[in-house]
Amino acid sequence: MQFFRDRINAMQGYKPGEQPPPGSNIIKLNTNENPYPPSPAALQVLQDLSGELLRRYPDPTAKPFREAASKALGIPADWILVGNGSDDLLTMILRACAEPGRRVVYPAPTYVLYRTLTQIQDAEFVELPYGEEYDLPVEELIAANGAVTFIASPNSPSGTLVPNALLEKLAAGLSGLLVIDEAYVDFAESDALELVEKYDNVIVLRTLSKGYSLAGLRLGFGIGNPALLNGLMKVKDSYNVDAIACAVGAAAIADQPHKIANAEKVKASRAKLAEDLKQLGFQIGPSQANFLLVRPPHGNAEEIYLKLKEQGILVRYFNQPQLQDKLRITVGTDVQNQKLVQLLSQ
Amino acid sequence: MQFFRDRINAMQGYKPGEQPPPGSNIIKLNTNENPYPPSPAALQVLQDLSGELLRRYPDPTAKPFREAASKALGIPADWILVGNGSDDLLTMILRACAEPGRRVVYPAPTYVLYRTLTQIQDAEFVELPYGEEYDLPVEELIAANGAVTFIASPNSPSGTLVPNALLEKLAAGLSGLLVIDEAYVDFAESDALELVEKYDNVIVLRTLSKGYSLAGLRLGFGIGNPALLNGLMKVKDSYNVDAIACAVGAAAIADQPHKIANAEKVKASRAKLAEDLKQLGFQIGPSQANFLLVRPPHGNAEEIYLKLKEQGILVRYFNQPQLQDKLRITVGTDVQNQKLVQLLSQ
Repeated sequence: MQFFRDRINAMQGYKPGEQPPPGSNIIKLNTNENPYPPSPAALQVLQDLSGELLRRYPDPTAKPFREAASKALGIPADWILVGNGSDDLLTMILRACAEPGRRVVYPAPTYVLYRTLTQIQDAEFVELPYGEEYDLPVEELIAANGAVTFIASPNSPSGTLVPNALLEKLAAGLSGLLVIDEAYVDFAESDALELVEKYDNVIVLRTLSKGYSLAGLRLGFGIGNPALLNGLMKVKDSYNVDAIACAVGAAAIADQPHKIANAEKVKASRAKLAEDLKQLGFQIGPSQANFLLVRPPHGNAEEIYLKLKEQGILVRYFNQPQLQDKLRITVGTDVQNQKLVQLLSQ
Repeated sequence: MQFFRDRINAMQGYKPGEQPPPGSNIIKLNTNENPYPPSPAALQVLQDLSGELLRRYPDPTAKPFREAASKALGIPADWILVGNGSDDLLTMILRACAEPGRRVVYPAPTYVLYRTLTQIQDAEFVELPYGEEYDLPVEELIAANGAVTFIASPNSPSGTLVPNALLEKLAAGLSGLLVIDEAYVDFAESDALELVEKYDNVIVLRTLSKGYSLAGLRLGFGIGNPALLNGLMKVKDSYNVDAIACAVGAAAIADQPHKIANAEKVKASRAKLAEDLKQLGFQIGPSQANFLLVRPPHGNAEEIYLKLKEQGILVRYFNQPQLQDKLRITVGTDVQNQKLVQLLSQ
């Protein structure tokens, strides 16, 4: 169609992982959802919601959520910017900072949406390969001089965490923005929040989709200094987070014990699943996320993906360089993981 | 800050209307919310929601909502594209179609967000003045040759409806996209949906914020041919509409009798309020929306806005050309409107 910009006509658009309809009998280990339910306190909020909250526009900055997050994480509320999922924050960052003549830089393989959103802005993307053991190419990243540099940590699909010392070197070396995408941090040993205070070019992204079991709610947030957030606000949709997400999210983030208990269960299951798959001859990278990147003994990842799908288990196969012989498997409940291991052993 | 694009540094950002916190004792006639509660069926959905729906990612295209809207409005489900409010659809349209060297055209005064979103895309905006009685400058709009042309109908802040014959002339004359923004159509005598089938360059936007009393939910949708919607999908956030909005919205749009009954009440109150204000010497334009654009007898709109605010009633004052002597007043309940009239008569 002639209506669209050339760039858009040439694009395929980002394809999210498969979403079978609710109620279908499929074991879903493909989009890194938490296998356990959200906080009962969050669900209770739904019971108590009034029509009045829905009738009126929500608070444009989701203040009730920001105040709860502030308390839970020990960050001032005005250092928090909300998004309709953390993807919305990625979009805001690139709409505010990326344009023709500017570069967006990140190590690869990583979250494919960084590239898609950069393309939409007609900016140049620079993908620098991770080292053999997913070592961060710090010097190359600094030399690439991005207006924006993305680091997913823990990274997807590798599950690897970047040590804070390296992130700090990067923050100090870059003149552009450093975005540390911590979508999976609730399953990791450490986080990079301390860098936000030290460096005015750092923003950390969080989501309630993974650790808080609220992927259906669409709520993410960025943590950065207020001057940075005020610039991003200019491209924020006025009411990007709805009144329900604000209220439910506030209750969920206040319930840290629930989140931590679920994360501990997932981490224990992750260790068990990794051990079981190793027994079957799979190569397993170290993961600090709620998924594993695994290489089947014969590298026939696509074949296994298709066979598992036939048998009612969805895992993620990425048909792209460095990943063609691997699968990304979300850690499910122990029962789900055992079912998977059982099928794979056949 | 040096991180942002020059365009962003130069911008102010869109300022939404004031939102006093829920529970405050203010009569809110400034952001065109519906004074009546949403459908009881929609509220019941909240009671019945399962944690499982929240744990998992939502359907990327909000299929359950699209199917309900399809049935309610008699449009095929694949002619519907969902947005996180209709503002999200405006953003999608401009991200897909607007860039430097392309024009975005609309009659003015109208919804200020058209300009803000065009600026973010670094495209040129062309604002053509409405005629004295808000007559649409059709020939000038065609001659301006926009990649995108926006017509809000009913228009805000005027409340005026553009006849379909004029919209059709425009659709036929334009080679770019014609966006008919029907946010307020539930309070109008007619709509422009029939044009979508006839012209492949027309998209109609709707929202659940006004007619369905669900401004807090953030749910809008576009109606257009599937080829057009597929292009817009490329810039859509993967999961832009959350699982709750999808389920609640489906129930709300299915309950057409509730929406129609509330709209009838609002229309009756609109006539009464217009009559009462005329008695006080106000000039009132014809409105097919849930608000009135009024000129106080002495044109001292800002002064009246401030005095009303002091006394606990918020109305909207736009400090911009053509509007400096006017106020936009949302039609409230009859009790709220009487309170307003009483204060204005003093």
